[in-house]
Amino acid sequence: MWTFDNLPLKEMQDRYQFTPSSDWLAHVERAALRLKAGCSAAFVSADGLIITNRHCVDNCIAQLSTPAKDYIGAGFYARGREQELRCPDMEIDELEATSDVTARVAEVLKGRSGDDYAEGFATVSGRLEQDCADGDTRRWNCQVVDLYHGGRYALYKYRRYQDVRLVFAPESAIADFGGDPDNFNFPRYCLDVALLRAYDRDQPVHAEYLHFASRDPAEGELVFTAGNPGTTERGWTVAELKALRDDDIMPALVYYSELRGILEQFGREGAQQQRIAYANLESVDNVIKSDLGQFDALQDQEQLARKTADEVALRDWVLSDPARRAEYGDPWATIASAMGRYHALVTRYRMLEESWGFESRLFDYARMLVRGTEERDKANNRRLAEFRDANLPQVKQTLFSEAPIAPDYEELMLGWSLTKLRAALGADDPLVRRVLGTNSPDQVARMAVEGTRLDSAAERRRMWDESDYMEVSDDPMIAIAALVDKQARAVRKEYEDEVESVVRVQDELIARARFARDGSGSYPDATFTLRLSYGQVQGWREAEQEVPAFTDFAGLFSRANGNAPFRLPPSWLAAEAGLDPDTHFDFVTTNDIVGGSSGSPVIDRQGELVGLVFDGNIHSLGGDFWYDSTSNRAVALDNRALLAALRKVYGMPGLADELVNGHS
Amino acid sequence: MWTFDNLPLKEMQDRYQFTPSSDWLAHVERAALRLKAGCSAAFVSADGLIITNRHCVDNCIAQLSTPAKDYIGAGFYARGREQELRCPDMEIDELEATSDVTARVAEVLKGRSGDDYAEGFATVSGRLEQDCADGDTRRWNCQVVDLYHGGRYALYKYRRYQDVRLVFAPESAIADFGGDPDNFNFPRYCLDVALLRAYDRDQPVHAEYLHFASRDPAEGELVFTAGNPGTTERGWTVAELKALRDDDIMPALVYYSELRGILEQFGREGAQQQRIAYANLESVDNVIKSDLGQFDALQDQEQLARKTADEVALRDWVLSDPARRAEYGDPWATIASAMGRYHALVTRYRMLEESWGFESRLFDYARMLVRGTEERDKANNRRLAEFRDANLPQVKQTLFSEAPIAPDYEELMLGWSLTKLRAALGADDPLVRRVLGTNSPDQVARMAVEGTRLDSAAERRRMWDESDYMEVSDDPMIAIAALVDKQARAVRKEYEDEVESVVRVQDELIARARFARDGSGSYPDATFTLRLSYGQVQGWREAEQEVPAFTDFAGLFSRANGNAPFRLPPSWLAAEAGLDPDTHFDFVTTNDIVGGSSGSPVIDRQGELVGLVFDGNIHSLGGDFWYDSTSNRAVALDNRALLAALRKVYGMPGLADELVNGHS
Repeated sequence: MWTFDNLPLKEMQDRYQFTPSSDWLAHVERAALRLKAGCSAAFVSADGLIITNRHCVDNCIAQLSTPAKDYIGAGFYARGREQELRCPDMEIDELEATSDVTARVAEVLKGRSGDDYAEGFATVSGRLEQDCADGDTRRWNCQVVDLYHGGRYALYKYRRYQDVRLVFAPESAIADFGGDPDNFNFPRYCLDVALLRAYDRDQPVHAEYLHFASRDPAEGELVFTAGNPGTTERGWTVAELKALRDDDIMPALVYYSELRGILEQFGREGAQQQRIAYANLESVDNVIKSDLGQFDALQDQEQLARKTADEVALRDWVLSDPARRAEYGDPWATIASAMGRYHALVTRYRMLEESWGFESRLFDYARMLVRGTEERDKANNRRLAEFRDANLPQVKQTLFSEAPIAPDYEELMLGWSLTKLRAALGADDPLVRRVLGTNSPDQVARMAVEGTRLDSAAERRRMWDESDYMEVSDDPMIAIAALVDKQARAVRKEYEDEVESVVRVQDELIARARFARDGSGSYPDATFTLRLSYGQVQGWREAEQEVPAFTDFAGLFSRANGNAPFRLPPSWLAAEAGLDPDTHFDFVTTNDIVGGSSGSPVIDRQGELVGLVFDGNIHSLGGDFWYDSTSNRAVALDNRALLAALRKVYGMPGLADELVNGHS
Repeated sequence: MWTFDNLPLKEMQDRYQFTPSSDWLAHVERAALRLKAGCSAAFVSADGLIITNRHCVDNCIAQLSTPAKDYIGAGFYARGREQELRCPDMEIDELEATSDVTARVAEVLKGRSGDDYAEGFATVSGRLEQDCADGDTRRWNCQVVDLYHGGRYALYKYRRYQDVRLVFAPESAIADFGGDPDNFNFPRYCLDVALLRAYDRDQPVHAEYLHFASRDPAEGELVFTAGNPGTTERGWTVAELKALRDDDIMPALVYYSELRGILEQFGREGAQQQRIAYANLESVDNVIKSDLGQFDALQDQEQLARKTADEVALRDWVLSDPARRAEYGDPWATIASAMGRYHALVTRYRMLEESWGFESRLFDYARMLVRGTEERDKANNRRLAEFRDANLPQVKQTLFSEAPIAPDYEELMLGWSLTKLRAALGADDPLVRRVLGTNSPDQVARMAVEGTRLDSAAERRRMWDESDYMEVSDDPMIAIAALVDKQARAVRKEYEDEVESVVRVQDELIARARFARDGSGSYPDATFTLRLSYGQVQGWREAEQEVPAFTDFAGLFSRANGNAPFRLPPSWLAAEAGLDPDTHFDFVTTNDIVGGSSGSPVIDRQGELVGLVFDGNIHSLGGDFWYDSTSNRAVALDNRALLAALRKVYGMPGLADELVNGHS
C-alpha cells in the first residue's frame, strides 16, 4: 500500500527486475479514481468511461430502479449516450496533485492536546484546503490527510465529478454469482463490474485513461493495483486492536446480524420489498462477513504475539532511556487508558452520533439540515468536519438527491433502530424518554415518517436555503433530529477530545519513536487515498489443497444449479454455446488490498489494465492488521471475461470497442 | 450455591445468627423441584400445586394456544380442576435422595483418557443409574452428577412427573411487563409466575410443600433460595473462559441476533405469526441479553486479573515441586491445547450436532427417530447419553408430544438455518452439497416440511415402535436426518474425545491440586442440581444512584404508558382502583443465582415462601464466572403481590386460598 512518492523501487527491481518509470507512475496516478461511497475505479477511455465494481454502484442502480424497471435483477444497458442515466448521489474524485504539508501542520499542532488539538488541526487543515480549492469547491475537493499516524501530513487535491452516469451493469445474478456463500472465497465466478461515464456540463469529460490489455494476465506475472484502500490498523497498538475487537466489531456483529434477519424476512414479503432490501442486505452481508473475518484474524495468536513483542520492544527502547522517555512519554499506557474511556462512551456515541438508534435516510436528511444550518454560520475551522467548505458540495449532493424513498422501509428501519436505542441506553434514559414519550418505537417511527415532508428534495432544498423556513417548521423528523442533536454533539465532542485526539497525539509519538529507531521505509496505514500495491498472479494453499489462480467460464456453468445465488441469468444461459469455456473469468493475486480497494484496476508492466479487483479472499480480512503473503489474496475479474460478456452475452460491441480502442 | 450436605453453617451463624435445622433442610429439599426445560420450581400445596415462573412455561402455553384461544396474550385461568390443561412436553423432577458415588466412579476412571474415559464413565454411571431406577425409569430419574469438576461424583434420584397441568398463567403483558428493555434490569414490575399441578394416575399428587408466608420480606432480611442453577464456569481456567467468549458466546450472538431479526419481522406479518414467533423470540432475546452480559463480564479486567493471578499461583505451586508436577502434570497447558482443538472443530460441531444448521422441530424428531432406533439396540453404556435407559422417558415424551406444529414456521426456520449451514461449512463442503443438491435452502426446506409426515404424533410413534416401518420410509425429513447423522456423530465423537474428556480429566487434576493446597470449603460449580443460596433483601448502588430493594404497584401504574412492552392488560387497568398502591411487587436480594434458578422459591428463616426468583440484574450475568456481592442481585416476585393479583385482578380467590392454606 505504497504512496506513489515513496515506492520501494529497489525491492521491486530486485524481486521482479522492474522499475516503473515516472511517466508510468504519473499515468496510472491520473487514470485512477475513487468513489465517494468508498470504492476505487479508473478511467478506461478518453471519453470519460469509468470502470468499477457493480457492488460499488448498487445504491445508484437501486435508486434508478422502479417497480416497473428492475435494473438490479435485469441489469442496465445503455445502448447509446442518451440512455446513460445519472446516478443521483454519486461523486467520483480524480487525484490532481498531492503536496507535503507536514511542517505547516506540525507547527500549529505543537504542544496542543484534546479540544485545543482538534481545533488547531481544523484550523490549519481548513486553511490549507480552502487555499487549495481556490474558491471553487464544486470543482476541487481538497483534503489534508494524516499519513503514518501523524508522522506526515499531505494535501490531496481532487477533481470532483458529480455528474456520473450509469452505462452498463450486469444482472445481480452474475455480478454477485455465488452470493454470500462465495463472498470472500475463491474459486469465484463473478462479473462484478460496472461502467460509468463522467460528464461535465453535459459532455463526457476528456480523460487520461488506462489502456485495456489485449491479453490475459499470466500465472506468476507481476501486477499492480492502484486504488484507495479505506483504512487499516497495522500501526495500531495492541490496546487499540483489543478495543476494536470488543467495542467495535462485536457490537457491530450483533447489530448488523439482527438487521440482516429483519431485511431477509422483509425481502420475502414481496418483489418490491425484495428490491428495497437488496442493496442494504448486500452491504450488511459484507459488513458481517468482514467483521467475522477480522474477529477471527484478531484471534490469531501467532500474529498477535509477534505484534505484542514488537510493541514491547519499542516501548522498552523508549522507557529504558531517560532522554527518550522525556521526549516520547509512555504513549502505550496513555492509549490504553483512552481505550478505557472509549469503552465507557462508545455505546452512547454509536447510538446517538453514528445513528445506530436512528437508521433512516429521512433522519439523516433531518440531521444534515438541523446541523448544517447551524454549522454554516460558524467560522470554517469551528465547524464539524463534514460541514467545512470543502465538504459542502457532498452535503448538498446528498441532501438534494432525487433518489426515491420507500416510506414503509424507512418506518421499519427507524422503528427497529429506536428499539435498539432504548435497549442500549435503557428505557429510563432521559433522552430516550424524550424521544419516545409514551409511544412505542414503531409509533414514533410511523408518526415521523408519515408526517415528514423531507421525502421531497424540493422541501429539503428550501429548508437548506431558507433557514427562517426551517426554524418555523413543525416537521416531526426535524423535531426528532433537533431533540437528539445536543446530546449527540456532546458525546461526539467527548469522543473526539478524550479518545480520538489523545490517540492521535500518542500515535504520532509512537510513529516518531519508530522513525527514530528504524528510519523510514514502510508505507503508511491506509487512509482512503491512492496507493500502489505490487504482487503477482498466484493461488495459495488452503488446508491440504492448492487453490488455483484462475477460474474459467466452464467452471461457472458447472457451478450453476438454477437456484439463487447459483442461478445464472437468462442472458448467460442463452449465450453459453457461443462462449469459449476456457476463457479465464476471475483470478487471484498477492496484491495487498483491503475494503475501499474494490474497483481497483489490475495493471501490468506496460501500464495496461488486465483485471479489476472486486474482493479479497477470507484471509485478506486479516489485512487490516497485518499482511500475510502466504494466504492473503486479492480477487479480480479478468479483462477478457468482460470483453466476452459485452460482445457475446449482452450484445454491446460498441462498448467493448470503446474499451479496446480507448475511445468511442 | 451450596449443596445441602455441605453448607457453610458456621459462616451463616456468624453472619446472620441462624443455623438451619436438619428438618428445615430436609423440608426445603423435598419441596423444591426442577423443570426438564431448565428451570426451578416448588410445591406450594399438599395437592400438588407447583409455583414457577411464567417464562418457564411459555412453551407449554404456546402449545396449548390456538388461533381461537390465545393463552399467551390473554393468560390462562383454570377455575376448577377440570379446566387444568396438561402441558404436552413438560417434565418436573422432585429430588428423592442423593448419595456419594465418588469412590465407585473414580475406581473405573482411574488411568483412562479420551474415548476410553468417556466409555468408562458411561458404563459406571449407566450401571449406577440403572440400579437406582430399579427397573422403573418412568417413575425414577437417576443421574450421576459430576461435582467440583470430578472432585466428587454424586447419584441424584428424582421422582419424575410427566403429567403436569397448567393452572394459572397471567397475560404476557404483565408477566413480562417491560419486555426486553427491562429484562436483566431493576426496578422491575413483572408478575412472572405460573401455577401448575402435578398429577399421578389422573389424581393430584400429595406433596410436601412450602408454606406461603403471610407477610412481606423485609429489607435486610436473611433469605434463602433453593433451586437448580444451570451451569457456572467459576472453576474454569482462563483458557476455557477465552474459548467460551470467542468460540461460543460470539458466534451465538451473531447467530441468534440474525434469528431475532427474522422472528421480529415474521411476527409483524400477522396475529398468528406473532403468536408463533412469541415464545421463540422471548428465549432468543434472553440468550442474546445473557450472552452480551457474559461477554461484558469477561471484559472485566479486574476480575480477569484476579482470576489469572489465582491460576498462576496454583500452577506455580504445582510446577515448582517435582512430586506435585509428577502427580498433576500441567493441566493448564493441556487444557489450552484442547481449546485449540475446540476452536478448529466447534463450527462443524455446532452446525451438525447442535443443529444450528437444522433449526426445526420436525428435524429434531427425525434425528431422534434415526438415532434412537439405532441406539436402542446397543448396550446401555455404549449409547449416546441422551438415549440411555434413564433418559428414554424424556425422549418418548418429546417424540410423542401432541404439541401442534406450524409448517410455515418450520419451513422458514429450516430454510434459514440451511443457509447458515452453507455459510459456515462452505457451498463446496461435500455434506452441504449432498443436503442441498442443486436446490436452494428454501427449496430443500419446503420439500422436507411439505413431504414429511412427522407432524403426526401417531406417525412418530409408529416409527419408534416399528423399526421395519421406519426403515422403508421415504419420509424426506428422515432422509435428511439420516444423511447428516454419520458426520454429526463423527464430529461429536471428536469433540467428546479430544475436548470434553480431556478437559474433564484435567479439570479433575486442577480440582485435586486445589483441594490438596487449600482443603475443601467451597461449593461446586452449578450442574442443574439443587443448591441452597443465602443472602439478604438488598438494593445496590448503580453508577451514582441507589437502586431500592422493592418496587410497588404504584410504580407499575406510573411506568405503564399504554404501549408494549409497557402496556398493562385490561384486567390490571380494571383492577387498579381496588389495589393498594403500596403493595410490594418485585424485589432484589444478594442471593447467588444464575440461569436455571428461575422459579426458585425465596424462603425465610421459618422455611416459608416469601417470593419467587424470576431474573437477575445485569451484573448477575458475570455470576457465571465469579460472584460479586456489591452488584450481583437476584430479582424476585413478592408473595403478597401474587396473592393480591389472584384475589383482586383475576378473581381467583380459591387459588389464593389454596396457597395460603396449603391445600385446596
